[in-house]
Amino acid sequence: MTALMTDDDGYFAPVVEGRDRKGDVILVCEHASNTFPAPWGDLGLTAEQRQAHIAWDPGALGVMRRLAARLDAATISAPVSRLIYDCNRAPDTAGAMPARSELHDVPGNTALTPQERWRRCRAVYLPFQTALHSLIVERIALGRRPALITIHSFTPVYFGKRRSVEFGVIHDADPRLAGAIFAEAEAQTSLVCGLNAPYSAADDVTHTLRLQATPYGLDNAMLEIRNDLIATAAAEETMTDRLAPVLAAALSSLKEVPDA
Amino acid sequence: MTALMTDDDGYFAPVVEGRDRKGDVILVCEHASNTFPAPWGDLGLTAEQRQAHIAWDPGALGVMRRLAARLDAATISAPVSRLIYDCNRAPDTAGAMPARSELHDVPGNTALTPQERWRRCRAVYLPFQTALHSLIVERIALGRRPALITIHSFTPVYFGKRRSVEFGVIHDADPRLAGAIFAEAEAQTSLVCGLNAPYSAADDVTHTLRLQATPYGLDNAMLEIRNDLIATAAAEETMTDRLAPVLAAALSSLKEVPDA
Repeated sequence: MTALMTDDDGYFAPVVEGRDRKGDVILVCEHASNTFPAPWGDLGLTAEQRQAHIAWDPGALGVMRRLAARLDAATISAPVSRLIYDCNRAPDTAGAMPARSELHDVPGNTALTPQERWRRCRAVYLPFQTALHSLIVERIALGRRPALITIHSFTPVYFGKRRSVEFGVIHDADPRLAGAIFAEAEAQTSLVCGLNAPYSAADDVTHTLRLQATPYGLDNAMLEIRNDLIATAAAEETMTDRLAPVLAAALSSLKEVPDA
Repeated sequence: MTALMTDDDGYFAPVVEGRDRKGDVILVCEHASNTFPAPWGDLGLTAEQRQAHIAWDPGALGVMRRLAARLDAATISAPVSRLIYDCNRAPDTAGAMPARSELHDVPGNTALTPQERWRRCRAVYLPFQTALHSLIVERIALGRRPALITIHSFTPVYFGKRRSVEFGVIHDADPRLAGAIFAEAEAQTSLVCGLNAPYSAADDVTHTLRLQATPYGLDNAMLEIRNDLIATAAAEETMTDRLAPVLAAALSSLKEVPDA
């Protein structure tokens, strides 16, 4: 991997791919990485913990990239672990730099000073959101109105409880795109689908949508894929085969219905 | 005036003042400037037109700075005329780079190409909104939740019609701060006050509030002052004498009421 630092202040640029692609959708992966670079290092976690879902969303980046190729979509992904800064959380939330994640303490995140919280915002959160804002504004200025879809994965067992949902679609204030994706997934696939499952906006998981899509009135939705279904490259491709037509149909269906 | 350009791409940094001030309010002036720098120049307007309210909000910057001193507030203001890019408008709205403003054609804004629209977003709109976002995120990360107040002025005569309102307060989705300011202004001053006058959110004048305050749940409001009441430095100071206690009382009143 090439060096992540882009200047002496420790600015971690997100990864933007396919900026010039023509599809009218932007795919976002806030939990793409389990990289723990200096100056933070491993936050006191074991190697096993740094591989686990608490550090990132395994498989989400791979599925996002594969979906992007099918949908001709631009993508953006975070370059460091969500435990350093979770780009899908506002700076004043516990989840932004969590001291505990599911069953695991995160030693490097206990007793953070306000200055350290601001430093991580400057290093990770602001670069990510600024780059996404630029992607969106470019498209809007050029006369295209992109949909925004965030791609996540979730663990089959959470707090000891098995989850039956395989594919979740979550909405924030505007339910239209999420509803269309859910309906298409139910119709086109055999996946066990959930609307606003395994999380919902009440769990504070729609920050990116709220920050970036809602102010411009863009169609938006969050996807959650159970990570045991995308545990290998082949599985990612199979899941992409299932979801790409679902997303394409859902996006098309919204274009056919003019706004009220 | 010092050179506005900060790099070869023509990036116009907004003016941020009082970043380290301790008051929990940020004041914003999107229409502070009637500067028409290269590469755009005068957009084909006369010197008289470039002095008129179509180019900027006369008096708003002065009042904002005076209020900021009283409230210990950070401020941000746009460095170029709203006719080059109106930072209080989304990139796909006619008002962002208007071809006509009130009774005046803007020759330099007719037949803009999509590339030129994106260029102006990159040069003016994104730097402004990115800098404001950074100001907000810094405060939130440090454990402070700033209110956001935008400061505007309006012309006494619009499309030939005289306006009686002297001081308007406008809200977007969250009416609490605007309501409190309106009530305090009615109680404390003899100004002819209007709530959602002379404009309202339906006129697409609350873009900054919607983009920057609503996603973080920050208190927010837009102020409109009739520009004949702030036409000199002395008049700006008199208006500040009237409005500073109004804003201070309104901001305090919200802190006394915990969120539901």
